[in-house]
Amino acid sequence: MAKQPDPSRRSERSRQAVLAAARELVTEVGYAKLSIEAIAARAGVGKQTIYRWWRSKGAVVFDAVLSLSEIDGDMALPDTGDIEADLKTVMRATVAEFADPGFEAPIRALNIEILQDPELAALYREKVAGPVDEAKKARLRSAQQAGQIPADADLDLALELLYAPLYQRWLLRSGPLTADYADALVDLTLKALRPS
Amino acid sequence: MAKQPDPSRRSERSRQAVLAAARELVTEVGYAKLSIEAIAARAGVGKQTIYRWWRSKGAVVFDAVLSLSEIDGDMALPDTGDIEADLKTVMRATVAEFADPGFEAPIRALNIEILQDPELAALYREKVAGPVDEAKKARLRSAQQAGQIPADADLDLALELLYAPLYQRWLLRSGPLTADYADALVDLTLKALRPS
Repeated sequence: MAKQPDPSRRSERSRQAVLAAARELVTEVGYAKLSIEAIAARAGVGKQTIYRWWRSKGAVVFDAVLSLSEIDGDMALPDTGDIEADLKTVMRATVAEFADPGFEAPIRALNIEILQDPELAALYREKVAGPVDEAKKARLRSAQQAGQIPADADLDLALELLYAPLYQRWLLRSGPLTADYADALVDLTLKALRPS
Repeated sequence: MAKQPDPSRRSERSRQAVLAAARELVTEVGYAKLSIEAIAARAGVGKQTIYRWWRSKGAVVFDAVLSLSEIDGDMALPDTGDIEADLKTVMRATVAEFADPGFEAPIRALNIEILQDPELAALYREKVAGPVDEAKKARLRSAQQAGQIPADADLDLALELLYAPLYQRWLLRSGPLTADYADALVDLTLKALRPS
């Protein structure tokens, strides 16, 4: 990491400026009114710089959302040996993120794009939803080995029970997103998974 | 109901033609490419006729979706006295609707609008989601009276457990929509609601 001018580092700085500008603007004006021009102006780069790296507004917002989450880092869930406590820790953090306007606005914009664009949906599943779900299932499998969840439980269905109500409540703004709500979803899901 | 020319009946015929055209076109071309011009041409009416009744493309699609569902009719769920059987009947029908392109395309278009337009979301909640949820909760309350669901169960949360996984799977196209899936959601939800 020499201190000499490095075009790849300058280029990375521009890239980060574009992503930050996209996140800020989508929060301020919403996805529909977001323009490549405005992102370029806010980031202090030319439009052509943006089009060199991204094919569309949707693609910029996609990467802006990716850069928000810890998707490149360690996605492993906490494992204290207590699945109920660990899921509550994780769900409370997720609920708090979705209650945060700076986080939720870009994710909402991305979701709207995904619902209309099957290609973007497939990319999102491959790059984000898939790896994240795998990390969650790894924690559930460890709970299965510990005898806290039945060995034959359908883990995809378990994740849907846990997360889909939160996703729907956030997406449709149909109810409050609170720590109590996170806890209730964990309690109900663990009860649903118990042997009959 | 005299057979003489009746402007209100002709007007109702035009209205129904517009709604049918909107449903067909949104299925064929998607919401983004849908235009008032194309709806007018397909329905055989003038653009001004459409703008007399609806303020936007979103409003037309909203009414087209309303006219699809049995929202004006009797929304009561079946009540054979067996909550598990009745919920499976209802959930299987819902899953089948969402697996039907002619039904799901207008609903998808409407959902995309709702996610971007809080005013439309509020209208949808008032006119559609609210009354439908009340009908479902009436059936769950009858199951509570029959001792099949605990008296202190949170019925809003129960509906989320039952329907949110289906909504998410449909919206994100993340898994198959089958009768087995409908049954599994009913089984898991009823288990989750049992007393600890």
